[in-house]
Amino acid sequence: MGSPSPGFNPQPIRGILLDLGGVVYVGKDQPIPGAVQAIRRLRDTLHPLRFITNTTRRSHSQILRDLAKLGLDVAPEELLTPAQMARAYLSAHNLSPCLLVHPNLESEFADMATGSHDAVVVGDAGHSFDYEHLNTAYRKMIDGAELIALAKNRNFQDDDGQLSLDAGPFVVALEYASGKTATLLGKPSPDFFALAVQSIGCAAANVVMIGDDVESDVGGAVSAGLQGLLVRTGKYRKGDEIRLESTDIMVQDSLVEAVAFLDSACSHLG
Amino acid sequence: MGSPSPGFNPQPIRGILLDLGGVVYVGKDQPIPGAVQAIRRLRDTLHPLRFITNTTRRSHSQILRDLAKLGLDVAPEELLTPAQMARAYLSAHNLSPCLLVHPNLESEFADMATGSHDAVVVGDAGHSFDYEHLNTAYRKMIDGAELIALAKNRNFQDDDGQLSLDAGPFVVALEYASGKTATLLGKPSPDFFALAVQSIGCAAANVVMIGDDVESDVGGAVSAGLQGLLVRTGKYRKGDEIRLESTDIMVQDSLVEAVAFLDSACSHLG
Repeated sequence: MGSPSPGFNPQPIRGILLDLGGVVYVGKDQPIPGAVQAIRRLRDTLHPLRFITNTTRRSHSQILRDLAKLGLDVAPEELLTPAQMARAYLSAHNLSPCLLVHPNLESEFADMATGSHDAVVVGDAGHSFDYEHLNTAYRKMIDGAELIALAKNRNFQDDDGQLSLDAGPFVVALEYASGKTATLLGKPSPDFFALAVQSIGCAAANVVMIGDDVESDVGGAVSAGLQGLLVRTGKYRKGDEIRLESTDIMVQDSLVEAVAFLDSACSHLG
Repeated sequence: MGSPSPGFNPQPIRGILLDLGGVVYVGKDQPIPGAVQAIRRLRDTLHPLRFITNTTRRSHSQILRDLAKLGLDVAPEELLTPAQMARAYLSAHNLSPCLLVHPNLESEFADMATGSHDAVVVGDAGHSFDYEHLNTAYRKMIDGAELIALAKNRNFQDDDGQLSLDAGPFVVALEYASGKTATLLGKPSPDFFALAVQSIGCAAANVVMIGDDVESDVGGAVSAGLQGLLVRTGKYRKGDEIRLESTDIMVQDSLVEAVAFLDSACSHLG
């Protein structure tokens, strides 16, 4: 079923990380054609699988429910989100969150104990990104709060098929205003990839990350020692693959072709 | 009345540029104590004077009216604003403006002829900086519009005395999202300082810029070949002067001390 792409690194694949938006579905309820079947096939071939998303407009449990509606039963421990990283980070650093996130995500931080210092936590707040909320966050930072970015993606493919502003532009706005640098917890943070690799239980070089974001998904994975596979669905735009410094990535038209290609590569490698 | 500051460049001063917000007044109607009298004194000593502001929350004529209310009669040609620069730039480049500015500023662009290409024009839009407006501007840029920044200031001193987000953070947000670089028309653009110097009609080295923004006013002026004088009013915060690479600037407590110092320096130089 086709030969490996130029630049494909023929390390045996023992685990797969899947991005969600733009790879499995668009706008949370429109599956990419053939994607659900492709994931079932991955499960049938016993490839250990984790879903790793930068989506911060829905809670962990909402995402699981939306996947179930698509016909994908995903266990809670199979889905990794930046909010989980943030909870661990806030606890470890004794920080109180000042949330600049989507209303859907606030519940994930409801039980966080009050820490000794403040941290502004920025996710994709959508229409909550208004002057009032951003200025309040900025003033918190002047008063000493640090800045935590759940993600720094530039854009995402919106329900109308066009690109819309993601959390990243608002994170850099607050960085510029305050002179502080955000701690990034979502992709492409190496710590986030490491957590996912650790939960699979094999070496990073044997894990492939499949995503539609050339920077956060694919470039980030390669930088963290994983293999990266870019799909031409979702937010992918022509020429994205040449924006990466590394040419050591795989590119396939969609998750369907990606799974077929990995099957072929694995059998090719014996 | 005091000796020149360390680093003061003893070029004869033949013209003065004055920032407005934070130097002459706070929140447009509260004059800095003694500032109005100090400006009258500058006029009496026949120092050619221009007001050069990055304020984009009010139109040129509104600013003149607000200055008149403070007791300062300023001729239209004595006040330089980024919107004037933008009108000239749009005409010269045959561009249609897509405005992301404060409602007060829209009238300044009402008669602009429709150009062949679009340009997103960003000023300090205040509460008009919401997700909807920013996303619309971003999508215009995806479709090919260039980005024009009336100013890129990080913050300004708001009516409540605290710092608030200025246009700069939103300009960098759109730059980050789009991968494009904004054309900056307000301070610290060298072209803007050059226009002001030209209207005075002397060499840049003989003009001093007095401002409370260490980057846009003072650093920008020095980079453009002018002299720079930082006042410790308005948005000034302790230690701002050491943020500049150039140490060749003057620092005074307020416009009152600045004028006294320049008088002293001028008489000292004969």
